[in-house]
Amino acid sequence: MDHSVHRPSGTEVLLAHGSGGRSMHQLVDGLIIPHLNNPLLARMDDQAVLDISGVRLGFTTDSFVVDPLFFPGGDIGALAVNGTVNDLAMGGARPLYLSLALILEEGFALAELERILLSIRGAAEACGVQIVTGDTKVVHRGSADKLFINTAGVGVIAGETRITCSGAAVGDRILLSGTLGDHGMAIMSRREGFQFEAPIESDTAPLWSLVEAMLAAAPGAIHAMRDPTRGGLASAVNEIAQHSAVGMRLQEQAIPVREPVRGACEMLGLDPLYVANEGKLIALVHPAHAERVLAAAQSHPLGRDARLIGTVVEDAEHLVVLDTAFGGSRIVDLLAGDPLPRIC
Amino acid sequence: MDHSVHRPSGTEVLLAHGSGGRSMHQLVDGLIIPHLNNPLLARMDDQAVLDISGVRLGFTTDSFVVDPLFFPGGDIGALAVNGTVNDLAMGGARPLYLSLALILEEGFALAELERILLSIRGAAEACGVQIVTGDTKVVHRGSADKLFINTAGVGVIAGETRITCSGAAVGDRILLSGTLGDHGMAIMSRREGFQFEAPIESDTAPLWSLVEAMLAAAPGAIHAMRDPTRGGLASAVNEIAQHSAVGMRLQEQAIPVREPVRGACEMLGLDPLYVANEGKLIALVHPAHAERVLAAAQSHPLGRDARLIGTVVEDAEHLVVLDTAFGGSRIVDLLAGDPLPRIC
Repeated sequence: MDHSVHRPSGTEVLLAHGSGGRSMHQLVDGLIIPHLNNPLLARMDDQAVLDISGVRLGFTTDSFVVDPLFFPGGDIGALAVNGTVNDLAMGGARPLYLSLALILEEGFALAELERILLSIRGAAEACGVQIVTGDTKVVHRGSADKLFINTAGVGVIAGETRITCSGAAVGDRILLSGTLGDHGMAIMSRREGFQFEAPIESDTAPLWSLVEAMLAAAPGAIHAMRDPTRGGLASAVNEIAQHSAVGMRLQEQAIPVREPVRGACEMLGLDPLYVANEGKLIALVHPAHAERVLAAAQSHPLGRDARLIGTVVEDAEHLVVLDTAFGGSRIVDLLAGDPLPRIC
Repeated sequence: MDHSVHRPSGTEVLLAHGSGGRSMHQLVDGLIIPHLNNPLLARMDDQAVLDISGVRLGFTTDSFVVDPLFFPGGDIGALAVNGTVNDLAMGGARPLYLSLALILEEGFALAELERILLSIRGAAEACGVQIVTGDTKVVHRGSADKLFINTAGVGVIAGETRITCSGAAVGDRILLSGTLGDHGMAIMSRREGFQFEAPIESDTAPLWSLVEAMLAAAPGAIHAMRDPTRGGLASAVNEIAQHSAVGMRLQEQAIPVREPVRGACEMLGLDPLYVANEGKLIALVHPAHAERVLAAAQSHPLGRDARLIGTVVEDAEHLVVLDTAFGGSRIVDLLAGDPLPRIC
């Protein structure tokens, strides 16, 4: 498979450029990163690691453009806090401080803004981060869709922690912390007005306390982490495979998906491996400590459904291969196109 | 004058809520800040000051929604770098690292994106900051206007530096680093297609090296700083007056405004005191050191036109009063309404 980086081929920005999949990689790796030319940025983790006077900090940013603003299990406010907290946690950084920048469309209801602010406050209090600086812009009616939120985050990384998406090693076990696809299908069902027998709720949650428990179970054993948001598990494992120059072998039967999510995916022709999650992580763990880290995850409320879903293998092409439930195998590539725009 | 904080009175977001003036204060101080309930945020400086393991950091965020994206003297990319660098500098923080988050409208020309990325790179290199982490989102055509940029910034604050908008003291001299209104009128003239004899260019520039020179001239002498962006000089001095619980007396004749800017303002019925600047600062300086700090500013290319424009006075109502060129005086209040939306 050709994983070399090409510029985007057209002349315009496409929805697929925001997908988390192949097109986004072309835009980001092929155009944005080269133009900015910075080694810390080129590392392409979910967060930058800064060393300031001997203090190691994680620093990250995320904009949230999810549509609708309110959905089963959460809203854009909780998502904006948890998403940035999780990007810090994926580098082993304890989240401490967030910024909050709002872009508001003229005419947006203050009552909805207020609901979202209260959700932001609740989410921040729930995971012990403080929102310490902010910005508010307003654009004309029709120049934005209701509300966009950006949060940036600063966290502190303990002395010996070294977690990076280029850190996976052959033999590492792949831990997935829970069920796939809940967030994406909650958004889709709300957006499309689907009714399912069992309600599908977003899994949006702050992952730091889970990460902390996993790190404590076996210090140094976690080599890489990623939260499978846009582009889903498929994109997250492919990114780690490419940056670590390894292959991955996944077992489909080990990957938990809730029944209603599976049903909704089938109805819409979507593969749960590509659907966004907002409260799950994958961790690449040294094989000698994988069971211990798994047990720590399963003891945490956010990791109850954690499973070991595969293994890192040698592969010059850095492929991700899935052993299917039917005894075959297939290549799991980056997402192509964008079946689920504005999912976060 | 009643400076107590009221909630916004209507039920919807208005353009004026993004103005930098009275309405924005109602939205931010009356709704956003109380809901988020955080003492670091309530400090209301342009940046938060964080103490992490004894290292003092400045942390700030700004979204940029300027229309048009390209204007005389700059573009949204340079603005996004300089704006955040300046918010850090206003707290005496040496800017080190920026995040960069793009919200792109489907259909936006990649060639324009590329031009803006190169401008971002140039602006970052010019002031020695690194863009270390980022995010890219794409929304449907019509759900955003071309491109919005958010930058957050992290900088380091030297041990003894204590600069805050609540730090102005009676007797302090008010230093303005240069001419007023250039950015706002450059945007307006480009937006409205005005032609002036002398071209008006945005003053967008990174202010840290100027701040550094001023700090070095008289350590501890600068009590407060603000860059007069949205809402202009009038908003910046009013904010400091309120947070420091003092009054201000300004001399109109000392305030430099370029002739073409003055002419454009007259034509549009705008007061240069309320027009946005993107490469200017005001500093509140201990009177014993004001001349020395002024000389340092004037020796710097970005402070050549610096002037002492007024004095901090006792005033229980925290009024800003301008002694006019004609020998009268008038109260300079916060901006009401928003004559210049999407100026930054």
